[in-house]
Amino acid sequence: MTTDSWVEVNEDGGFGIENLPYGVFSRPGELPRIGAAIGEYVLDLAELSAAGLVEDRRYFASGSLNAFMVAGRAAWDANRARLVELLTDESYRAHVRPHLIPVAEVELLRPFEVADYVDFFSSEHHAANAGRMFRPQSDPLTPNWKHLPVAYHGRSGTVYRSGSPIIRPMGQRRTPGDPQPSYGPSLRLDFEAEVGFVAGVPSVAGHRVPAEAFRDHVFGFVLVNDWSARDLQAWESQPLGPFLGKSFATSISPWVVPVAALEAARVSPPVQDPVPLPYLRCEEPWGLDLHLEILINGQVAAHPRFASMYWTPPQQLAHATVNGAALRTGDLFASGTVSGPDREQRGCMLELSWNGQEPLELDDGTKRTFLEDGDTVTIRAQAPGSAGSRITFGEVTGTIHPALP
Amino acid sequence: MTTDSWVEVNEDGGFGIENLPYGVFSRPGELPRIGAAIGEYVLDLAELSAAGLVEDRRYFASGSLNAFMVAGRAAWDANRARLVELLTDESYRAHVRPHLIPVAEVELLRPFEVADYVDFFSSEHHAANAGRMFRPQSDPLTPNWKHLPVAYHGRSGTVYRSGSPIIRPMGQRRTPGDPQPSYGPSLRLDFEAEVGFVAGVPSVAGHRVPAEAFRDHVFGFVLVNDWSARDLQAWESQPLGPFLGKSFATSISPWVVPVAALEAARVSPPVQDPVPLPYLRCEEPWGLDLHLEILINGQVAAHPRFASMYWTPPQQLAHATVNGAALRTGDLFASGTVSGPDREQRGCMLELSWNGQEPLELDDGTKRTFLEDGDTVTIRAQAPGSAGSRITFGEVTGTIHPALP
Repeated sequence: MTTDSWVEVNEDGGFGIENLPYGVFSRPGELPRIGAAIGEYVLDLAELSAAGLVEDRRYFASGSLNAFMVAGRAAWDANRARLVELLTDESYRAHVRPHLIPVAEVELLRPFEVADYVDFFSSEHHAANAGRMFRPQSDPLTPNWKHLPVAYHGRSGTVYRSGSPIIRPMGQRRTPGDPQPSYGPSLRLDFEAEVGFVAGVPSVAGHRVPAEAFRDHVFGFVLVNDWSARDLQAWESQPLGPFLGKSFATSISPWVVPVAALEAARVSPPVQDPVPLPYLRCEEPWGLDLHLEILINGQVAAHPRFASMYWTPPQQLAHATVNGAALRTGDLFASGTVSGPDREQRGCMLELSWNGQEPLELDDGTKRTFLEDGDTVTIRAQAPGSAGSRITFGEVTGTIHPALP
Repeated sequence: MTTDSWVEVNEDGGFGIENLPYGVFSRPGELPRIGAAIGEYVLDLAELSAAGLVEDRRYFASGSLNAFMVAGRAAWDANRARLVELLTDESYRAHVRPHLIPVAEVELLRPFEVADYVDFFSSEHHAANAGRMFRPQSDPLTPNWKHLPVAYHGRSGTVYRSGSPIIRPMGQRRTPGDPQPSYGPSLRLDFEAEVGFVAGVPSVAGHRVPAEAFRDHVFGFVLVNDWSARDLQAWESQPLGPFLGKSFATSISPWVVPVAALEAARVSPPVQDPVPLPYLRCEEPWGLDLHLEILINGQVAAHPRFASMYWTPPQQLAHATVNGAALRTGDLFASGTVSGPDREQRGCMLELSWNGQEPLELDDGTKRTFLEDGDTVTIRAQAPGSAGSRITFGEVTGTIHPALP
């Protein structure tokens, strides 16, 4: 229970002792450093390690989590256990209390340096809806879809921290019926609510990482908004897939939820039929009972559930490395849009407005087909934590700015 | 003329004073550092800067070119002019000669850290041949192809130095007629002969880089072998493009040829019809008269000409950033397979064997449809240099190793 900590923690906040996500923060005039969230505070791990209270291998006096992420599961587990000890044992209160900083006093930065960015397409509902819209004459799912987790590489250099301005992209598009393509600001700017995991421990070229090794390589999870320009994407994507429709910006949440914090959230994923090839099988259930919430200008637009995702994170990792592609510390793997079977569970405007044909009405009466300049999109998630608690992923947010000429 | 240098230079070698490509090298027991190629030597720029003979901003005592690449065009031009001065003025001979190391005594490493890796599809002949093979009922080119340089993001973490072993990838494939997909080593392993350029100077998010700014951002060119598993690629690519069929390995050549060395190689590209949208126009001719040579086990398999590429490097850069996607130092942009109109100008086995239907016979009488374990593929290129000289790109090579279970 969250009450186990001597830190005053709001039970509904989701940043209790069962969560302890890691992030990077800064204060004016100070270098960025690593912290863990507890209640309404950031625990300054750089100061804590300088004080000898946690192991000091220069993991934490850093502007990114990468050095800690490469340290591996034993180091992650040991540090997590130590933080729990420090935050629950009253005898440490006097030593630790000076290193708790109200989160309102810090700026939260991008938590890690992204190596490669892979984006999956693992919601059956999202994939089928996209198929119905763009290939109405064909099966909603492509023939490969239930045999492998379809994915592509995105642009890692444009993965930004939450709150970064999202500048409407310019580009080329041609809608059916247009005689020629035209150039201008994207007219179909969209978000995609996704959940990503980040690799800590690298792998060796030529050797695959089996699904069972997921915990040995993966450090934790973040929320991802894979901003998308649907008009650019539709025109450019044949035959090599999305490029400029995605590459202008991707936003990630500031807190990385450790894999160990999600044990209580694990549930059985949907039944997979046909049974996947052996390299994609995973004995343990790795569906995750995450409840997402998408807000447009503060109003709930949808609330997808991650438990409905067809392909699980360990399957995604096993697939992405089956060809011997080496993992690097900081490799980010996003799930693809999280969409459920119901309209209010759809994770992007493309589906919510059915490609612009059915405007979504928000609580204040305004309607949206795609995003307008000035719109703010916020994605949140929470999940069951241990001992009956709830843990939160915090949020990833971004506001649309007008295109630059 | 190459005879301008006091260094003994073989005129046919292509590493004369008109070239001066940059690379990273090491000797046993020493840290990697930056050098320039001249004749059969590597000029040790770290030693040269330590000796005060070139400007020392710690550009060259580095295991990658990235710090020098970010310095920008004025620094690149000044250093190039200084190297020419040092290597042509006899009065410097005694000072510089100690810093020339026979290339046979060094190991050439990957010249830069790759940020993002973008792969284009800019040969009309290659794109049309692929279309004829995979979409025989449709136009060979997709409707967008002559309106924009089609591209996708590859995996930057698996861009390796020349000579790195290429381990045959495992994966999932389903050939037409197979009732189910199967798992195993790729049966259609291929090379792709490409030419890439690398960005040095970053750009600001939201702001496009126009074609005219190419020289301000781009440091130089390398040869690229974008190894491809055609069976994995064919099964996985719908609807989001290539993933595991490409992500296991890409090889690049050790020498980065400066943009300034290629002025004499610039030629008019093929006529573009329809005229591209204004953001893709480029006043200067930026076709490049590069002659490529592809060798399999030392026997010439093809000799594509880069001058036949439909989209030029400045157009590729303008397109890749038109949506405001920021450039980072080390961003690698490869051309896509360089294929000409004739069979002996095709830049990959997919085309050379027409998807395995027409085996390619090598000079020694052996035949290939796709690559076999033990095969070594080497790609070379040369181009006109200034004052009637020839410059070389050196080579990128790799040998196929058996798949790991």
